[in-house]
Amino acid sequence: MEKKITVLPGDGIGPEVVASAVRVLQAIGKRYNHEFQLQYAEIGGAAIDQYNNPLPDKTIAMCEESDAILLGAVGGPKWDNNPPELRPEKGLLNIRKTFDLFSNLRPVKAFPSLLDASPLKREVAENVDLMIVRELTGGIYFGEKHRDLDQASDLNIYSRAEIERIVDNAFELARLRRGKLCSVDKANVLETSRLWREVVEEKKEQYPDVEVEHNLVDSVAMKLITNPGHYDVVVTDNMFGDILSDEASVITGSLGVLPSASIRSDNFGLYEPVHGSAPDIAGQGKANPAATILSVAMMLRYSFALLNEAAEIERAVSAVFEDGYFTADLAKGDSRALTTDEWTDRVIAEI
Amino acid sequence: MEKKITVLPGDGIGPEVVASAVRVLQAIGKRYNHEFQLQYAEIGGAAIDQYNNPLPDKTIAMCEESDAILLGAVGGPKWDNNPPELRPEKGLLNIRKTFDLFSNLRPVKAFPSLLDASPLKREVAENVDLMIVRELTGGIYFGEKHRDLDQASDLNIYSRAEIERIVDNAFELARLRRGKLCSVDKANVLETSRLWREVVEEKKEQYPDVEVEHNLVDSVAMKLITNPGHYDVVVTDNMFGDILSDEASVITGSLGVLPSASIRSDNFGLYEPVHGSAPDIAGQGKANPAATILSVAMMLRYSFALLNEAAEIERAVSAVFEDGYFTADLAKGDSRALTTDEWTDRVIAEI
Ligand SMILES: CC(C)[C@H](C(=O)O)[C@@H](O)C(=O)O
Ligand SMILES: CC(C)[C@H](C(=O)O)[C@@H](O)C(=O)O
Repeated sequence: MEKKITVLPGDGIGPEVVASAVRVLQAIGKRYNHEFQLQYAEIGGAAIDQYNNPLPDKTIAMCEESDAILLGAVGGPKWDNNPPELRPEKGLLNIRKTFDLFSNLRPVKAFPSLLDASPLKREVAENVDLMIVRELTGGIYFGEKHRDLDQASDLNIYSRAEIERIVDNAFELARLRRGKLCSVDKANVLETSRLWREVVEEKKEQYPDVEVEHNLVDSVAMKLITNPGHYDVVVTDNMFGDILSDEASVITGSLGVLPSASIRSDNFGLYEPVHGSAPDIAGQGKANPAATILSVAMMLRYSFALLNEAAEIERAVSAVFEDGYFTADLAKGDSRALTTDEWTDRVIAEI
Repeated sequence: MEKKITVLPGDGIGPEVVASAVRVLQAIGKRYNHEFQLQYAEIGGAAIDQYNNPLPDKTIAMCEESDAILLGAVGGPKWDNNPPELRPEKGLLNIRKTFDLFSNLRPVKAFPSLLDASPLKREVAENVDLMIVRELTGGIYFGEKHRDLDQASDLNIYSRAEIERIVDNAFELARLRRGKLCSVDKANVLETSRLWREVVEEKKEQYPDVEVEHNLVDSVAMKLITNPGHYDVVVTDNMFGDILSDEASVITGSLGVLPSASIRSDNFGLYEPVHGSAPDIAGQGKANPAATILSVAMMLRYSFALLNEAAEIERAVSAVFEDGYFTADLAKGDSRALTTDEWTDRVIAEI
């Protein structure tokens, strides 16, 4: 297989973790006989510095003629006081919207060897294996905004079609997993949530093999912590998904191991770690590349349908953790922390 | 002191826990020489059954001529399929709006003797003592809603004045506590959040003794679990407050011990447990009355400025837990669970 990938290293530790993930990707290519062509472009702070635009046209053009995008991270104190249009995260919001990447997948899976670092009791966190499916291009993120001296507003708006496609996506994912879907809304207060719930009720006829529950966002915010093992696939809107997926990310004990995918209907997608750009440790070889490496695995699975290759990366990452190798964020007690590159070498050696 | 209190027992376990709290209130009245006059009215499902209205005019009239409101809980499967206007929680939303109860206080304090029941590791949950201050009468809860066949929307809208009064409230509370305020928003996406942040920045000049931080809602959703001890007072809008306060409620190990207050500028207020109506255990003497009893303590403190009396109730509740007495939700191993009434007797004996 031949695929072209646009790589957007971004800011902070972005370039380091992306470099690791690219090495793993190339190792997989060699082992399974695929050719991954890479082209690099700017986004976020790096793009603001060079082009005064967090998502330059050149970057868009390159992404357009590629099969998938790999992103590091954006942001940093340098741009924190910029106006909204010139902030690094605007690049992220724009790329999602430009490429209609409406389906954001955030799997949260416990690695037994990392659970000491979790704020949750081991018996609560172990065996967690859930996937948050967040609608990423609609809702209050992109609805009309108003501001005058005395008042501000944001419109939360969803069309039936927007809800249908993300709900279909979630049903299909649930069917390939343990067949359970939890749809999250605030139907006792929001009109958008009542439409959301209606769509899920209609759609469920088409997926009789999937067991569906509706739950309110406040109640899920509790249960994700008291009983995260309850969940398989969780589907929700843009704003609730933002909050719940970050909340769920604490279960594993490390943001450094959580990948994400943002996918369009034709399976074109953007892959990035859940963590941010961590400017405080940038350039020191301390960054944990696991999340970005696992994001590459998601790319192989969801954009290229290379299921074995994806599983191979996931197995390798697990094995390195099981063998007791950790980067600085996870190394405990007297065990020496590996550098970003050393840890990546271990993963490649497993492949 | 003489005070008139309207009691709204509501549905499910509401009547039981309210009965306990009223007994504790009367005990305090006797001990400190206050006269608390009680009058009872309907809300929620009970009011729908009797008046076809979750908040009857008669209830409003009674609340109007009283000094505070004590509420049990509303809701139950019986009314789950009613249209929105005839649902129990509509009574709750209406009473908040009718009486302009804009400031919702939800303290979360760890009881050392309950931490075994927490999903969090003991070292994470112990020493937690935070207060979530949620704006309760504005934002997306009450903004204009639209719905047609293909589309739905909810308007999130805040005026400067609405933000100012809740932020002032939070600053004043922080000043009486540990002097730390965390304001939560999503200023990188929402216009309402940018106005919110502006107001906090302006207000902080008036409270130089309070240390202020701004943080994004997704990031707070993580940190409330990884490092809840970091927080003192947390102030946020209606929707974020709904989610974050329920999330924070898991820290203590039991919803059954969490009180709340919903207060107007003149200190008139409604007091209710955070937990719901738990119809599955209603009428069995299994309900934990601690949350409602502690809500009465909040009433004494915030509406009547009876600080010693409030502290006395809180001390009594703590002492009963320390002595190892629990209701069914918290009794562990071989220790016998006390009934709602037995547990309440213990608290009264401490006063
Ligand atoms: C940076 C920000 C705009 C973004 C979001 O809210 O979507 C981030 O929090 C995320 O979840 O990817
Ligand atoms: C019942 C519901 C409308 C209510 C809310 O969302 O405010 C409840 O969740 C609460 O937090 O008191």
